[in-house]
Amino acid sequence: MKRLKSYSLRKWIEGNGNFKKIYSPVNGKEIAEISSSGLNFKEMLEYARNIGGTKLRSMTFHERARMLKALAQYLMKRKDEFYPLSYMTGATKTDSWIDIEGGISTFFTYASKGRKELPDETFLTEGKTEILSKNGTFVGQHICVPLEGCAVHINAFNFPCWGMLEKLAPTFLAGMPAIVKPASVTAYLAEAVVGAMIESNLLPDGALQLICGDTGDLFDHLTGQDVVTFTGSAETGRKLKSHPKIIENSVRFNLEADSLNCSILGPDVTPDMEEFNLFIKEVVNEMTVKAGQKCTAIRRTIVPLPQLHNVVNSLKEKLSKVKAGSPLEEGVRMGPLVSASQLDEVNQKMSILKNSAEVVFEKSNGKINGGAFFEPVLLLCNNPLTSIEPHETEAFGPVSTVMPYNDIDEAIKIARMGGGSLVGSLFTADDDTARKVVLGIGAYHGRIMIVNRYCAKESTGHGSPLPHLVHGGPGRAGGGEEMGGIRGISKYMQRVALQGHPTTLSKICRQWIKGAQQITDKVHPFKKYWDEIRIGETYFTPRRTITEADIVNFAAISGDHFYAHTDEIAARESIFEKRVAHGYFVLSAAAGLFVDPAPGPVLANYGLEDLRFTKPVYPGDTISAALTCKKKTAKEKRENEPAQGIIEWYVEVKNQNDEIAAVYTILTLVKRKEETL
Amino acid sequence: MKRLKSYSLRKWIEGNGNFKKIYSPVNGKEIAEISSSGLNFKEMLEYARNIGGTKLRSMTFHERARMLKALAQYLMKRKDEFYPLSYMTGATKTDSWIDIEGGISTFFTYASKGRKELPDETFLTEGKTEILSKNGTFVGQHICVPLEGCAVHINAFNFPCWGMLEKLAPTFLAGMPAIVKPASVTAYLAEAVVGAMIESNLLPDGALQLICGDTGDLFDHLTGQDVVTFTGSAETGRKLKSHPKIIENSVRFNLEADSLNCSILGPDVTPDMEEFNLFIKEVVNEMTVKAGQKCTAIRRTIVPLPQLHNVVNSLKEKLSKVKAGSPLEEGVRMGPLVSASQLDEVNQKMSILKNSAEVVFEKSNGKINGGAFFEPVLLLCNNPLTSIEPHETEAFGPVSTVMPYNDIDEAIKIARMGGGSLVGSLFTADDDTARKVVLGIGAYHGRIMIVNRYCAKESTGHGSPLPHLVHGGPGRAGGGEEMGGIRGISKYMQRVALQGHPTTLSKICRQWIKGAQQITDKVHPFKKYWDEIRIGETYFTPRRTITEADIVNFAAISGDHFYAHTDEIAARESIFEKRVAHGYFVLSAAAGLFVDPAPGPVLANYGLEDLRFTKPVYPGDTISAALTCKKKTAKEKRENEPAQGIIEWYVEVKNQNDEIAAVYTILTLVKRKEETL
Repeated sequence: MKRLKSYSLRKWIEGNGNFKKIYSPVNGKEIAEISSSGLNFKEMLEYARNIGGTKLRSMTFHERARMLKALAQYLMKRKDEFYPLSYMTGATKTDSWIDIEGGISTFFTYASKGRKELPDETFLTEGKTEILSKNGTFVGQHICVPLEGCAVHINAFNFPCWGMLEKLAPTFLAGMPAIVKPASVTAYLAEAVVGAMIESNLLPDGALQLICGDTGDLFDHLTGQDVVTFTGSAETGRKLKSHPKIIENSVRFNLEADSLNCSILGPDVTPDMEEFNLFIKEVVNEMTVKAGQKCTAIRRTIVPLPQLHNVVNSLKEKLSKVKAGSPLEEGVRMGPLVSASQLDEVNQKMSILKNSAEVVFEKSNGKINGGAFFEPVLLLCNNPLTSIEPHETEAFGPVSTVMPYNDIDEAIKIARMGGGSLVGSLFTADDDTARKVVLGIGAYHGRIMIVNRYCAKESTGHGSPLPHLVHGGPGRAGGGEEMGGIRGISKYMQRVALQGHPTTLSKICRQWIKGAQQITDKVHPFKKYWDEIRIGETYFTPRRTITEADIVNFAAISGDHFYAHTDEIAARESIFEKRVAHGYFVLSAAAGLFVDPAPGPVLANYGLEDLRFTKPVYPGDTISAALTCKKKTAKEKRENEPAQGIIEWYVEVKNQNDEIAAVYTILTLVKRKEETL
Repeated sequence: MKRLKSYSLRKWIEGNGNFKKIYSPVNGKEIAEISSSGLNFKEMLEYARNIGGTKLRSMTFHERARMLKALAQYLMKRKDEFYPLSYMTGATKTDSWIDIEGGISTFFTYASKGRKELPDETFLTEGKTEILSKNGTFVGQHICVPLEGCAVHINAFNFPCWGMLEKLAPTFLAGMPAIVKPASVTAYLAEAVVGAMIESNLLPDGALQLICGDTGDLFDHLTGQDVVTFTGSAETGRKLKSHPKIIENSVRFNLEADSLNCSILGPDVTPDMEEFNLFIKEVVNEMTVKAGQKCTAIRRTIVPLPQLHNVVNSLKEKLSKVKAGSPLEEGVRMGPLVSASQLDEVNQKMSILKNSAEVVFEKSNGKINGGAFFEPVLLLCNNPLTSIEPHETEAFGPVSTVMPYNDIDEAIKIARMGGGSLVGSLFTADDDTARKVVLGIGAYHGRIMIVNRYCAKESTGHGSPLPHLVHGGPGRAGGGEEMGGIRGISKYMQRVALQGHPTTLSKICRQWIKGAQQITDKVHPFKKYWDEIRIGETYFTPRRTITEADIVNFAAISGDHFYAHTDEIAARESIFEKRVAHGYFVLSAAAGLFVDPAPGPVLANYGLEDLRFTKPVYPGDTISAALTCKKKTAKEKRENEPAQGIIEWYVEVKNQNDEIAAVYTILTLVKRKEETL
C-alpha cells in the first residue's frame, strides 16, 4: 500500500508509525496510509523562516511574480498526472477541473497582478504620504514588509489542489515561506502537486514544505511572525484558533469555515423570465458540483412565496436527472461523498434538518458497493423566520432547503439568519432590488453575486471564489478573508508607519517624497538613460510669460472657446474674475518648457496622474516647471524591443510668485542602457 | 463619596452594589466608588445595534464626519472641566494635554479625512473594478459596509480621554455605535467626557453608552457583527480574546498590549552631533511623560558601545533634574503612578529586571504621603543578546534599560528580541543606516520613527500615535492595528465582493462602471446643474480630423518640438514609426469637442486622473470623445459661494476605427440648483 510522504528540510519522509488508512469513496478499498509521526515540526518551522523566508524576502515582487508564473506553467504541463488522483477522491472531471486548473489559475492571476500592481521592490510602499507638520519636514509613510515567520496552511479535504494553491499564491508573492498540511483523506493529490512543485526547482529551498498527517506539536512553536490559515469545520477551526500559543503570541489566524450560503430569487422574477431558469440551474449546480461538498454551496434557497411551487417542481425535475456514481463511469454528473464517515455525518445532519423542514425530493441513499454515495436531497422549510435548523445546521453534501418569503424585507431577514456567509446570490432583473438586497445583507457576506440575463453567460457562478475578489465571510463563516487580489498579500505582511524627514523616507522607500532633497545636473534628463536618472533628480525649466495671444491661439487650435478663456465679460462674473489660460495650455506650455526635442532615450509620455489645477494662470503671468524623478520601475525585456523602464516624474508648475498653478505626475517610457542588462 | 454612573439606554445609572473604591494616587484618599452591578448588558448591546447603529448607518460618511467635527468643537469648549479630573489621576498638565486635547484632535483629524477621502455615501466603494470576463458583462467590485453590531471598547487606565476618543473616531465614522468601558481607576475622567458628548446632543440616541465598572456577562451576548477592542495588559487581553463567544462567533478582536519598545542611537552619532542630544532628550521624555505609564514608552535604549558611557552619563544628568510630585505642585515634571497597586507591580517587575541589569540611576522610591510616587530608574544590561528579562519584562513606569551594541546588525538583533513592538525609533544622520534598520526591524514594528536634525523640530515624538498612522504592533504588542487614517474604519466594516453586470453594480454603488448602460440626452451636459446630471449620462461629441497643420501649430504654441511630432526622419525610426500628434493636443482637441462655450452651471475643470495614451493619433486620423458621468459628490455649501458639487467624467477619445487613443477622468466643479438645498 502506498504510504504518503511529508516533505521536510529538503527530504521526503515517510511517517515512522501510527499510520491511518485512507479509503476510496468510490468502492471503500484502501488507497493509502498516512502518518507524520517522526517529523520535527520545530525544525521545519525554523528551516522555513531561516532558509526559505530569507531567500523569498530578498526577491522583489516582480521576481516572486515571475516565479509564480513559471510554476503555473510547469504545473499545467503536468496536470494530466493530477486528474486520475482527483478522480480517486470522488471528484468528477468537472469537479477536478475546478480543483486542478482553477487552482493553477490563481498562480497565473497573482503572477499577473504582482507585476502590474506591485513595485519591483522587496516591500511595498502603501498609500499616500501623510503630512504631519506645518513645514513638511516631518512626514509619515506606510510600508508593508513580509512577515519573517512561516505560513502554516491547514486545508480542507474538498479542494486539495485549489485550496492549497489559492493560499500559496499570495503567500509566496508576499515573500513568505509555507508549510502545507492537507486534509488526510485526500492528501495524496496535494502530495502529488507539492511533489511537482519541488521537482520544478523553481521554488527556493525551504519555501514549501508538506505535512502528510497531523500537525503534532507544531503549534507549540509558533511565533508572532507566523501566520496560520485554516479551512474546514468550524469546530476544529475554533479549537486551533484558541490554542494557547496562537493567543499568547498574537499569531495571525485566518479561519474560513463552511457557512449556510443562500441564493435568493428576486420578487420580480416569474417562470417565463430567463432569470428564473438561471436560478434553477444555479441551485442544482451548486447542490451537485463536488457532491455539494463545497464551502460556498447554496444551502438555503430563498424564493418568493408565489413562486414556491414552481421553484420546487423545477428543481425536482432537474435533480431527478442528475446521475450519481463513480467519476469514471459514463454520464455520471455527481461523484460520491469523500468518505464513509462524511456520509454518516451528512445523514446525521439531515436528521436535524428534518426537525423544521420536510423532504420534497430524495432518491434512495446509502453505501453502494462500499462507496459513500449520497443522492441529492431537497428540503422545504415553510417557516424560515421561526425555524433555527436550516440557518445553523449544514449537511455538507448535495442538500439544500427551500424557504419562501412574502416580501423582499423578509427575504433579507431570512438571508441574515445564516449569521454570516461566504457568499450569497440574487437572481433579479431589477437593479433597485439588487441595491436593496446588497445593502440589506452586505454586512453578513464576504461576496454577493447578482445575476440577470445580461451577465449570466459570462458569470463565473455562485460557488466560485476568484483570486481577484475576497473570499471569506463574517460570523459563522469564520471571520476570515483570503485573496481579493493584492489585498491578499497583506495577510502575510506587517504594515509599518514610518515617520521622519522626507529625504530619509525617500531613501528608505526608493521613491521621492515631496519635501525630500532635489538633486540637479547640468545634463538634461531627457538625454539620460533610465539607469542614469537618480531618484530625486530635478530639472528646473526656464520661464515663459503667458499672454493674451497665447490664450487666443490656444482657443483657436483646440476649439475650446469656454467663456472663462474667451469672453471677458462672462469671465469677470465667474469664479476666475477675469480671463484665464486654458488648463490644458498650462500643461502644454510646461511640456514645451521641459521637453528636449532631440531624439534620445525618452521614448514616450504615455500617461498622467493626479493632476490638479490649483491656481488660475492669467495673461501676464510667468510660469516655470520643475520635474522631479519620483519613482523608477524597470520593465521586463521583450524580444525585438529596446530594454525599457518607467520613470514617474512629479511636476509642479509655478507662477512668478512661487504659487503652484498645477501639480501632476507624468509617466514616461525611457530606454535602458543595454550593457546594464 | 462620588459614585460613578454608567450610561445605558439613555439613562445614567448608578451600580446597585459591589462597589469598588478608587483612591487618589497623589495622597491615597478615596475619590469615588464604581460598580456596574445591575446593568443589563444584553439590552445595552441590542440598544446600540438597533437604535444607535440603525441611525448611524443611515448617515453618510460626510454627515458622520461633520458630526465628529461638531463633537470635537463642543468638547474643546468644555475642555477646562476635564483638566482637574485629569490631574486627579496623577497626570501633569503636559500629560493631560496629550490625553485631552490630543484625544479631541483625533476627532478633528477623522472629521477632515472623512470629508476629503470618503464619498458622501453610507458605504464605501473600495478599489478598482475587476474585469472578470472577456466581454466585460460580468465584473467585480468591492464595497465596505458598516458592521451591524456594536463596538465594545475596553480601555486602559493611562489615557482615559485619548484612548477612548481615538477608538470612537473611526468607529463613528464607519457607522457603528459603541459601548465604552474605561479602566476603573481613572474612569471618572472618561465618565465626564462621555457625559459631555451626551449633553452635546450631537450623537444619535444609542450611538454611545458607557460602562463604569466591570463588563459582567456582556461577552456572552456578542455576535459576529460586533467588534471588541482591548488596550491594556497582555494577560487580560489574552483572556478576553479567548472568550468562548469571541471564538465561537468569530467576533473581531483588536488587541493592543504594552510592548518593550526600543530607541536606537545610530552608530554614526557622536556626542558632538545634534542627533545625540535629540536622542537623550527623547529617552528622558519617554521615560517620564505620564510617569512612564505609556504603552509606547522607550523601555529599551540601544546604543553603540563606544557611546555607552556618554549616553548613560547624559541620561543620568537629565533624569536627576526631573522633579516628581503632585501634578498641582509648582515645577513638577512627573506625577505619581496611577495607584498603589501599580506601584507594587512596578517594584515587582523591577526585581525581575535586576536579574540581568544593574541599576545605574535611581532615587529613593516608595509611597510618599500615601501617594504612589516612583522616581525614574535607569538600568544597564551589558549582555542584551544573551539576556531575556529586558526584552520580555515591562516595568510600566519611568524605567528604561540601556543596552550596548557592537555593530548595526547587532542593534537590529537586539531590537527584534522584543518580539513585536508598537513603536521603535532611530536617531541617525545617515539615511543608509535608516534604510537598513527599517528593513531589519520592520516586521516587528507597527511604527518606526527616524529622527535627524532636519526633522526634529517638527517631530511629533517617539511616543505619540497619530490618527494618520497605524497604531499597534505584532506579537507581544498584541497583533492589533488602530487608526492609520481611513484604514481605521475598515475594522468596523465588512468588505464585500460584488459580482454582476456593470449596470447592476453601477446602480448599487451609485457610480458608473465601465460597461454599464450609458444614457444620452439632447441637452448638453454643460448646460445642466449638478443635480440634473444622472450617473451614466453620456455626451458623444462630434468628430475632428487631426491634420499636419494641427501638429505644426500645436508645436508652435506649446513650444513642444519633441522629435516624434516635428522630425519626420527621427519619428520614422521611433516606436511611433511616423509623426504623431502631441498627447496634450489630443486632450485639448477633445476638450474643444466637448466644451460648451457659453456660461452655464459648469464652473471649472480642476483636475484630471488616470490618463493613459493608449494609441498614437496620426495626421489624417479622425477623433471623437465620449464623456460619461461617473460619480457625483455634493460639496458643503459655504457662505458667499454658489452651492457646488463635483462631477467626475470618464472620457474616452477614439479614432475612426473605434480604437481608444486616450482614456482619462476629468473633475469638474458644477453649480447646484439653489432650490434643492
